[in-house]
Amino acid sequence: MAKQLIDARTLKGFRDFLPDRMMLRETILETARRVYRSYGFAPIDTPALELFEVLAGKGSEETDRQMYHFKDAGDRHVGMRFDLTIPLARFVSQHAHEIGMPFKRYHMATVWRGEAPQAGRFREFMQCDFDTIGTTSIVSDIETVLVVHDLVAAIGVGEFQIRVNNRKVLTGLLNRLSLKEHSTAILRSIDKLSKIGEEAVIAEIVTATGCKKEVAAEVVNLLSITGSCRDILGQMPMVAGGDPLALEGAHELEQLVAGAIAAGVPETRLAIDLRIARGLDYYTGTILETFLAEHPGIGSICSGGRYDDLTQMFSKNPMPGIGASLGLDRLIAAMEELGLAPKEQSPVDVMIVQFDPGLIAGYLRMASMLRAAGLAVELFPEARKVGQQFKYASKKGIPLVIVAGPDEFSGQRVDVKRLADGQQTSVSTADGCDELVEWIRKTLAESKPT
Amino acid sequence: MAKQLIDARTLKGFRDFLPDRMMLRETILETARRVYRSYGFAPIDTPALELFEVLAGKGSEETDRQMYHFKDAGDRHVGMRFDLTIPLARFVSQHAHEIGMPFKRYHMATVWRGEAPQAGRFREFMQCDFDTIGTTSIVSDIETVLVVHDLVAAIGVGEFQIRVNNRKVLTGLLNRLSLKEHSTAILRSIDKLSKIGEEAVIAEIVTATGCKKEVAAEVVNLLSITGSCRDILGQMPMVAGGDPLALEGAHELEQLVAGAIAAGVPETRLAIDLRIARGLDYYTGTILETFLAEHPGIGSICSGGRYDDLTQMFSKNPMPGIGASLGLDRLIAAMEELGLAPKEQSPVDVMIVQFDPGLIAGYLRMASMLRAAGLAVELFPEARKVGQQFKYASKKGIPLVIVAGPDEFSGQRVDVKRLADGQQTSVSTADGCDELVEWIRKTLAESKPT
Repeated sequence: MAKQLIDARTLKGFRDFLPDRMMLRETILETARRVYRSYGFAPIDTPALELFEVLAGKGSEETDRQMYHFKDAGDRHVGMRFDLTIPLARFVSQHAHEIGMPFKRYHMATVWRGEAPQAGRFREFMQCDFDTIGTTSIVSDIETVLVVHDLVAAIGVGEFQIRVNNRKVLTGLLNRLSLKEHSTAILRSIDKLSKIGEEAVIAEIVTATGCKKEVAAEVVNLLSITGSCRDILGQMPMVAGGDPLALEGAHELEQLVAGAIAAGVPETRLAIDLRIARGLDYYTGTILETFLAEHPGIGSICSGGRYDDLTQMFSKNPMPGIGASLGLDRLIAAMEELGLAPKEQSPVDVMIVQFDPGLIAGYLRMASMLRAAGLAVELFPEARKVGQQFKYASKKGIPLVIVAGPDEFSGQRVDVKRLADGQQTSVSTADGCDELVEWIRKTLAESKPT
Repeated sequence: MAKQLIDARTLKGFRDFLPDRMMLRETILETARRVYRSYGFAPIDTPALELFEVLAGKGSEETDRQMYHFKDAGDRHVGMRFDLTIPLARFVSQHAHEIGMPFKRYHMATVWRGEAPQAGRFREFMQCDFDTIGTTSIVSDIETVLVVHDLVAAIGVGEFQIRVNNRKVLTGLLNRLSLKEHSTAILRSIDKLSKIGEEAVIAEIVTATGCKKEVAAEVVNLLSITGSCRDILGQMPMVAGGDPLALEGAHELEQLVAGAIAAGVPETRLAIDLRIARGLDYYTGTILETFLAEHPGIGSICSGGRYDDLTQMFSKNPMPGIGASLGLDRLIAAMEELGLAPKEQSPVDVMIVQFDPGLIAGYLRMASMLRAAGLAVELFPEARKVGQQFKYASKKGIPLVIVAGPDEFSGQRVDVKRLADGQQTSVSTADGCDELVEWIRKTLAESKPT
């Protein structure tokens, strides 16, 4: 009786990564790792599964509903992490004595949310967080902006702008206008400014809070001021209107901008935007978002801010911090739409054609020499027709192929073909592989898209 | 009413990775990535969650029992992957037309098994697999040995030996002696040779199979022959005793050893061991294991082999392949026991002490210049006492600290202190940071453990 075959498919809302996308992911993760480390952030990892009680009720009602959770074989109620912030809070509380403060960590890992799948939304995705815990120093706020700047610049997705704000300005302003209790509703309306316009937002605020139209208009006008960082900072006394908290926020914004510029962030890449609020209930100071000049519509690709107490569910000691997170999947979606995502299915620099199976030892030796010089080399495993082997290399996006038969081996030469244009060159191997390595390096450098 | 605090703890059998271990993991994964890529293996990823039917019944009864599985919110029966082989089989079947054959992939990812936690065994661990699918060419077998060799050599855990075998030799031998139906029992006994000795193994085989003592002794003797690869290959006709399958296996072993040596594997790192069997029901040709010379007792740290049909549960078309897997956690355990696992909690090369908060702009500029030169630089976020800042750097294992106050800034000099021995040097910054960068690089190179 024939065995029943199983349909090979992924779960709804989940996806495989083929080599082209996985190589892009690896490149971005490697860039993030390098930038995070260059500022002294060290990597950690935490389990995918946590006790349900550790995860539940710490995010929002939405994350609770979306969490994958179940009873394990030992009847423990467990959940799959849906972000890296709660695991960080648990980690910092559990290892407080080992890690010391301030504690700077990055964590790049998979999280799971059972949300309704829609275009560009998946139930499994990666987060790339970095946070500085245990200090309220503005230096950490400045460094957070610098890390985001260096990271997005290093990834290379064209020009971009980091928009900063400070929650104290918002809170102070609403406080002064006796609107503090309505802050959630007001900020939700403010968020729609670019979509529905000032008049509609003012009307919404009046409806939601019962305040006078003039007051609502003042809020909208004050939060909507535009201009250079210098211009906006110059108008902050007017925005703050003497409110001490708002003035404190304004001073922090001033230090943040001055520090970032002193460290080398171009002024064109930095903007103050008093309307951004991000996770109202969580952030308490600096807030930042990052937009691509060529694809602003995709939203912020790197966001974060300062919070007062990371570990409140685990400890009575307040634990302040600041951090941000790179939206890897959103970034890759933007790169795809901008034509910046490569299609290569292979990391190989040069493929050696298996022309004659009797020459395997020679091919293996040549491949070893090229690898020793740092090249990625594939030896085609079978002695198929040369045309078939070329086709394989071409389909994978491998740029160069080496062809060598008995004549070439005895003459100490190989033919190297550039697949993009078919250009073929005969290169000497009389000196071992030095000349060949040099030729390959030069040709690869010339072939790189500019 | 005070909120109820939650106990910050990980699930039983799960663990956090602190920076020291996570940095070691990242280094090893980066090495594996580089070596795998240098042979033309490309990365893929698959979801942590798969449909239960995809995972169930494909490993063993043991893996089925250990699988984390549950009904999701959509009432789908789902499971967490417990290896990377079944996901590969599903992936290859699902994407056959996109990926083309031969297909060479690596996959480094987390898997979960709810096994009884014991020393060194965890319910969550990483696998680092590479496989070549869609070809039966011996070249892929040779390359598998080469990858394992280059990988273990690059990681740097002292001398090691790759032990190879071929299942056809075993199967042919047992066939010839009419013991094929008892192969599982015999190989289980053979596995105990080094522990219980020849006599006991022979007795076990006689009991298990009912064969004559002389026959059992012949099996044990033939499989136990030792010597150089050349010696053992010379004795293969005797082992095979004319059995065609065993002779085929012997020929493959000969090609494997010749190819690996031609490509540069030192003969001392390669051994033929006819006793290794690994996953009897799965592997069908080449088998390999890797042992550390300084820690053989920890077992094979990199193992694999050739199989006839990866995708049999998804497709009627046989899909042959060969691959191996680095046992990351076992390797790290070995490195810890050998004193090769670093204790540093930070990736930082040099920390800038915040001596005077009025000089923040200067510190930030200096940090940016050092980072632009490729150094990892931490600016201490608070202007605490210098001694406290030194203590922080020392605890994290940061090798160098820079101290600069107003006098140093105006004199265009900084003091750099090497924390290991307290040696302090005054370095000029009159030329920007060029001299400082050079001094730091030189000092770091000198300080590296040899």
